Amino acid sequence: MSLVTVGTVAFDSIETPYGKADRIVGGAATYASIAASYFVKDIRLVSVVGDDFPEAEMKYMTKRGIDLAGLEIKEGEKSFFWAGKYHNNMNSRDTLATELNVLATFNPKLPKHYRDAKFVMLGNLTPEIQMKVVKQMAKKPKLIALDTMNFWMDVAMPSLKKVLKKVDLLTINDEEARQLSGEYSLVKAAKVIHKMGPKVLVIKKGEHGALLFMDGKMFYAPAMPLAEVFDPTGAGDTFAGGFMGYLASTSSLSFENFKRAMIYGSAMASFCVEEFGITRLKSLNKAQINKRVKEFQKLAAFKL
Amino acid sequence: MSLVTVGTVAFDSIETPYGKADRIVGGAATYASIAASYFVKDIRLVSVVGDDFPEAEMKYMTKRGIDLAGLEIKEGEKSFFWAGKYHNNMNSRDTLATELNVLATFNPKLPKHYRDAKFVMLGNLTPEIQMKVVKQMAKKPKLIALDTMNFWMDVAMPSLKKVLKKVDLLTINDEEARQLSGEYSLVKAAKVIHKMGPKVLVIKKGEHGALLFMDGKMFYAPAMPLAEVFDPTGAGDTFAGGFMGYLASTSSLSFENFKRAMIYGSAMASFCVEEFGITRLKSLNKAQINKRVKEFQKLAAFKL
Repeated sequence: MSLVTVGTVAFDSIETPYGKADRIVGGAATYASIAASYFVKDIRLVSVVGDDFPEAEMKYMTKRGIDLAGLEIKEGEKSFFWAGKYHNNMNSRDTLATELNVLATFNPKLPKHYRDAKFVMLGNLTPEIQMKVVKQMAKKPKLIALDTMNFWMDVAMPSLKKVLKKVDLLTINDEEARQLSGEYSLVKAAKVIHKMGPKVLVIKKGEHGALLFMDGKMFYAPAMPLAEVFDPTGAGDTFAGGFMGYLASTSSLSFENFKRAMIYGSAMASFCVEEFGITRLKSLNKAQINKRVKEFQKLAAFKL
Repeated sequence: MSLVTVGTVAFDSIETPYGKADRIVGGAATYASIAASYFVKDIRLVSVVGDDFPEAEMKYMTKRGIDLAGLEIKEGEKSFFWAGKYHNNMNSRDTLATELNVLATFNPKLPKHYRDAKFVMLGNLTPEIQMKVVKQMAKKPKLIALDTMNFWMDVAMPSLKKVLKKVDLLTINDEEARQLSGEYSLVKAAKVIHKMGPKVLVIKKGEHGALLFMDGKMFYAPAMPLAEVFDPTGAGDTFAGGFMGYLASTSSLSFENFKRAMIYGSAMASFCVEEFGITRLKSLNKAQINKRVKEFQKLAAFKL
């Protein structure tokens, strides 16, 4: 089924203990769309870039079945740029530079043929932009997922609460779930967040896995312990892309299917961090993904 | 099968956002032994208390099948005392007081009938005391487990390394595994630690679950997300007690059985935090434990 992905398409400069990568292609919608493209072919991207964005990358995405009709290219302007440096533990990072560039005036316009999409993934952007996308959908999609962060809770909580009413699924990390709900216990936080709109809550905990709260039930997806994490950039977006791609490919919204989506998302994220930027995501194949999800099954399975 | 538990038997004063408890019974060996007693009846405790330790608590332990022949009672002296205050997030705490008292001169002497035990759990004490216990075993037990902490890595690493050579299983948290091994990746840390002695490594991550490394294989036991955590004190010791009690009750040292032990340990820990001190552990029954481990199975199970 069709999936609309909304988010940044950008350049990142990344420094990790393993090395440096300068002005490589990144952005939430890039990671999410490529991850999703391993599961579903009808992906419709919404974003904005400057005229500095490499055509080869756009061609690559198109080849993977990602429709770029909704990717606005602003002549004479620059793409969004982020630079960051990860500390030794890879769990914390310093932002060295954020240049909004084209993102400062981003006003998403969905091409007509996007508006009947069944699945929508709203990447981390201002809640106002996320709302603009929701309002352009011609009819209610089967599932709208939204990713956000503490920054929007700090500066735009009223707008965030408005758009949350319109979405079915929210992905945030554990600290953000606590901030949004005012509850420390994630079980209690989930109940508060369900009342804000999203019937499904996915709490991403990085190397500690991810939690799914839905229909009064819980599921704990482990993260795969890895010998090397070269670059954590985009892991959360890759998780979301794998998750939504898997859901869109199967189209069932049962708890059992959401659990599988959690595992496919986790598997994609575990690949993402193996190399810098989107490198590893580009070199994947279905057999490798299926092998990895079986490793997740081994990691979590026990018999009483 | 027989299980020797070595560790503190003590008083704790605890303050959490939910309330205060003054001079209640605590200590690693207390939590571990009571947790283990739900699985195995031949538990032989090694510790030391002053003459201030309540007889009723000793009677309770004896009634639960815990042999106290190895619990030294020092007349005219006071039991070990710890006071701590948990912050709102329950994941960090301040130690307000540590009074070693009888522990300062603790020199464990194992009663003769303890020395043929099949399973030994060495609670967090100085590595020298842990070594003294190991040396008193008449013949090599089926499994010796050791718990330790960053403090001993800071002040007694050579002694810790000596005793690690003698043990089969090590339980520590993720930061301690990193400190002990010098490796940030837990996969690499496990390899380094296996070479130090313990063929089995259990990494406790609190609310993020626990990891088992053994025979080149991994297992991720989730932690049960709870609506309320009243008091985290003793959760790690309760995990270890449930883990070792389950192993001793079954006596198989297969990977599959260690995985089950992880779940039973996690289940016991999830009960422990529901009330102050050992209160909840005392009121448990087998049916509740079996129900909880089934909830863990639901939490982690998925079908591809």
